Amino acid sequence: MEFSIQTRVYLEDSDAQGIVYYVNYLKFMERARTELLRELGFDFQPLQEQKGHFVVHSLDVRYLKPARVDDNLQITASILKTARTYVVFSQKVCRIVASNEEKGIEKGELLLCSGTVKVACVSSDTGRPMVIPEDVAKAFLRQCVE
Amino acid sequence: MEFSIQTRVYLEDSDAQGIVYYVNYLKFMERARTELLRELGFDFQPLQEQKGHFVVHSLDVRYLKPARVDDNLQITASILKTARTYVVFSQKVCRIVASNEEKGIEKGELLLCSGTVKVACVSSDTGRPMVIPEDVAKAFLRQCVE
Amino acid sequence: MEFSIQTRVYLEDSDAQGIVYYVNYLKFMERARTELLRELGFDFQPLQEQKGHFVVHSLDVRYLKPARVDDNLQITASILKTARTYVVFSQKVCRIVASNEEKGIEKGELLLCSGTVKVACVSSDTGRPMVIPEDVAKAFLRQCVE
Amino acid sequence: MEFSIQTRVYLEDSDAQGIVYYVNYLKFMERARTELLRELGFDFQPLQEQKGHFVVHSLDVRYLKPARVDDNLQITASILKTARTYVVFSQKVCRIVASNEEKGIEKGELLLCSGTVKVACVSSDTGRPMVIPEDVAKAFLRQCVE
Repeated sequence: MEFSIQTRVYLEDSDAQGIVYYVNYLKFMERARTELLRELGFDFQPLQEQKGHFVVHSLDVRYLKPARVDDNLQITASILKTARTYVVFSQKVCRIVASNEEKGIEKGELLLCSGTVKVACVSSDTGRPMVIPEDVAKAFLRQCVE
Repeated sequence: MEFSIQTRVYLEDSDAQGIVYYVNYLKFMERARTELLRELGFDFQPLQEQKGHFVVHSLDVRYLKPARVDDNLQITASILKTARTYVVFSQKVCRIVASNEEKGIEKGELLLCSGTVKVACVSSDTGRPMVIPEDVAKAFLRQCVE
Repeated sequence: MEFSIQTRVYLEDSDAQGIVYYVNYLKFMERARTELLRELGFDFQPLQEQKGHFVVHSLDVRYLKPARVDDNLQITASILKTARTYVVFSQKVCRIVASNEEKGIEKGELLLCSGTVKVACVSSDTGRPMVIPEDVAKAFLRQCVE
Repeated sequence: MEFSIQTRVYLEDSDAQGIVYYVNYLKFMERARTELLRELGFDFQPLQEQKGHFVVHSLDVRYLKPARVDDNLQITASILKTARTYVVFSQKVCRIVASNEEKGIEKGELLLCSGTVKVACVSSDTGRPMVIPEDVAKAFLRQCVE
């Protein structure tokens, strides 16, 4: 099941090329992952209490079109795979295009950037891989198959 | 009249001290100013077409309490003063405290950070001070006195 | 005594107005404060071991001219005042101008941004003001009067 | 031929997990690419005059170990492949480990993060792929085969 959030592009996100600085799409993607976790019932703090936290293990991203200041973006996060100690997200950043009857433009989303992000659960004490807490793992699995 | 937006604190906003990196409150404050301008009818792009843009001239900020990841923040922007070539904003960043009957906590806002930001209109060509376009100036004045 | 570091401006520091995003000058200023502390013998970690850390209490900044990508900047940090629980820095960000005989330009520094930053020592446990550890305070005082 | 720069980790680079925010390694990598271009004789501005600029087309990154505040990092950029409109960099971020006779540690580099970044040349006017200016392409090729 695809989960999505919306965010506005601000000056802080842009660079001197007049577009969103490419690194910042990864921040947008993380916001979507974080909100998906929150939707599933898991905030940032509670996981810490279980002495674990999620860290990004690896990622690959493909940039297609640039976003600009004032753009409305939709960022999606879908769970591709969930394993004992990690979870793989598929993510997309789209520009929300408003309908414009005069110009014959229909409301829609334009894909700007897509990627795959593998997130690992690690022990807060040792930094080593840790089995994802059972309730979190179950929620991931439900989200993945739905 | 006070204008406000809400924003969530993400990992990207935090630092190794476990709190929001102090510099990032200024990003939050700018988001509020930008949304106030949008509310008044002025996006980032249109002003560019008038060959002008707003730049921060000076600011002073006082930090009271830290924000943390997952916090819900309310950021306000009020126009303190508007002049020919600049406008002064008063801004606050508050944590939105959810009510908690058990703990006897009522819903409210806790002030974390406040500041004054003077924003100048400059010519996009020369970088020199420019008179704020009339329609923008009028909207600022209305917002200021309301 | 004035302490200074040099830093290059990268795309990451800029915004869609083609200049350094105003918030990022504060990062540059902090780099200079951090290196001044390191010069005095105090890294980030050791202070943590004393269960204290420095947080920015308040700041005021005045922006004069913009920096751009590729610029070489010089950032200074001088201690204006040191007290039991806080220290006040005076800071400047200058562009290093290379000499250019043809254009008759001499090597020099052009002031872009200046500010005052009050940094407080707080307890890592309680977040409350803490007396600055004696060795750090002494080093600040020496740096201040020299 | 491998090109490298060194950079210090500051509080600005870290997050509430006490480590460098994973997104910021990409900023470090870009600094190395930028300095490699500068070494080859090409700053950010001159390319703009040829109405072209480089944008990141795609990247994949693998995180191995975290960096922390105060760490000294070495970031390398090697050209893996150069084509008509794009260039592929191989990049590494290492922690510089100081020698410590007592602990029997020799000076060295510890690999923290590695990645491949494909950078495309695009027209500043149209945003479409553009052939890399000849002098830049030649310099890339020399750097690649050396």
